[in-house]
Amino acid sequence: MKGSEIKFWEDIGLKIIHRVEDVVRPLIGTPKSGEIVKIGADGTPTTMIDVVAEKEVVNTLTELERPLFLISEEIGEVMIGNGPPEAILVVDPLDGTSNAIKKIPAYGISIAMALTPVASPEIPNLQDISLGLVKNFATGDLYSGFKGAGAFLNGEKIGSSLIDDVSRTSVGAYIYRGDMNRLEPLCKTVRRMRTLGAVAIEISYVADGTYDAFVDMRDNLRVVDVAAAKIIVEESGGIVTDRYRHALDDKLGVLEKTSLIASGNEKLHDEIMGILGGI
Amino acid sequence: MKGSEIKFWEDIGLKIIHRVEDVVRPLIGTPKSGEIVKIGADGTPTTMIDVVAEKEVVNTLTELERPLFLISEEIGEVMIGNGPPEAILVVDPLDGTSNAIKKIPAYGISIAMALTPVASPEIPNLQDISLGLVKNFATGDLYSGFKGAGAFLNGEKIGSSLIDDVSRTSVGAYIYRGDMNRLEPLCKTVRRMRTLGAVAIEISYVADGTYDAFVDMRDNLRVVDVAAAKIIVEESGGIVTDRYRHALDDKLGVLEKTSLIASGNEKLHDEIMGILGGI
Repeated sequence: MKGSEIKFWEDIGLKIIHRVEDVVRPLIGTPKSGEIVKIGADGTPTTMIDVVAEKEVVNTLTELERPLFLISEEIGEVMIGNGPPEAILVVDPLDGTSNAIKKIPAYGISIAMALTPVASPEIPNLQDISLGLVKNFATGDLYSGFKGAGAFLNGEKIGSSLIDDVSRTSVGAYIYRGDMNRLEPLCKTVRRMRTLGAVAIEISYVADGTYDAFVDMRDNLRVVDVAAAKIIVEESGGIVTDRYRHALDDKLGVLEKTSLIASGNEKLHDEIMGILGGI
Repeated sequence: MKGSEIKFWEDIGLKIIHRVEDVVRPLIGTPKSGEIVKIGADGTPTTMIDVVAEKEVVNTLTELERPLFLISEEIGEVMIGNGPPEAILVVDPLDGTSNAIKKIPAYGISIAMALTPVASPEIPNLQDISLGLVKNFATGDLYSGFKGAGAFLNGEKIGSSLIDDVSRTSVGAYIYRGDMNRLEPLCKTVRRMRTLGAVAIEISYVADGTYDAFVDMRDNLRVVDVAAAKIIVEESGGIVTDRYRHALDDKLGVLEKTSLIASGNEKLHDEIMGILGGI
């Protein structure tokens, strides 16, 4: 793929990001932002702020007047425009919804794109993603990853952590009811544990060494939510698998779920796998 | 105490905050900020950014030319100026040091003051604090609490959460090696768990309902680190005790440690105590 084509689609991603940020900002920290307005395509409750964010994604893409395939949490899988799609966009319009509602400073957007000619209507899988963008609206930090061309934070090239001694690591973990048993051996070993509650942002933290690793053991993580962060980490030199150390090659459907372990380097990944056990 | 006197000391607190913020900002997210330069008065390693922050606190107070007693993590307990102290300042110059080093957006300052005439050299306890200020430098949010006069976020009056059904709560927890067993029953029950790794900020989150509760079960939390947040939560309508449900009346010494549970309301506090067990 030509650089100019990548740049074209990156700019569309950035346009979506700016527009969503603008409509979301006035709602941050307000009670009405958290009102549940419907049940999304993925079967989970959708809040008012989620709807506002996704509507802006759809509006932006519709105005482009290009044939696209959009995969997003609430709307599901939809064609926009006519003809064979030029790109598949996998979007989580608002990563960290509950943080946005409470004004905890980790919430933003995740946009992944598959730009290769697509044999529609077959839905591609995570390996087909060639561009990923994740922005934390609270801090302004923008992570990006481009297949074969590296990962970046605010335009500066980044690399993942080289620390492979687990006892020295800072690790992010998604903690949910009943996960504690699974995570306990890891918690006892790492230097520092964080749970910000915004998976795309926290997985991206592995790409610049903010975290040495990130762990989500639920088998309940939406594949569409991690599509962008996965390529960002991989392009930074890190490694991303599920908790069975299988490559993440899930179909990019809104109902697809996975576990995820992202590490700054292969040796650390092996160590973490060993500690979490049974793999 | 007269309102004008409170205002006078609040302004001194705000001056310290602005000056520390200015010297700390260029260091955020830089590797050198995390270099260990000495062992503090509390026996833990002190990073370069901690030293810079505390030095600015001392400089600001020295320039005031008023007799003060300062209690701070690295420097310990020191008299500044001559004569009987007009106030006791209990400062954590940098709450969330490792977040500041990694640029995770939860780091700031905690300043508590005891303003009543003090029977020096006796060190007062947590109950003597009459003013608390906690600022998150990453977001600009400033929490304040004044004995008998309420709690505020950026100057607006705030109140703690009224939710008393644990299954609906967002709870912050300090997670450290070996704590998982103690916290597991609570993790299984709450709606949402967060670990930002900045205790003063996270305890203050209880004052405006960002968190419904915050839990630190370590018995290893520095009393000086929570002095400001405690009064902020109490003045917001919340309740703060140790994990045995004892009032926090520890002496304000740098070596004093405690556990801490802060809840938005008494009923929730009782529920959490019951779930954590053995009390």
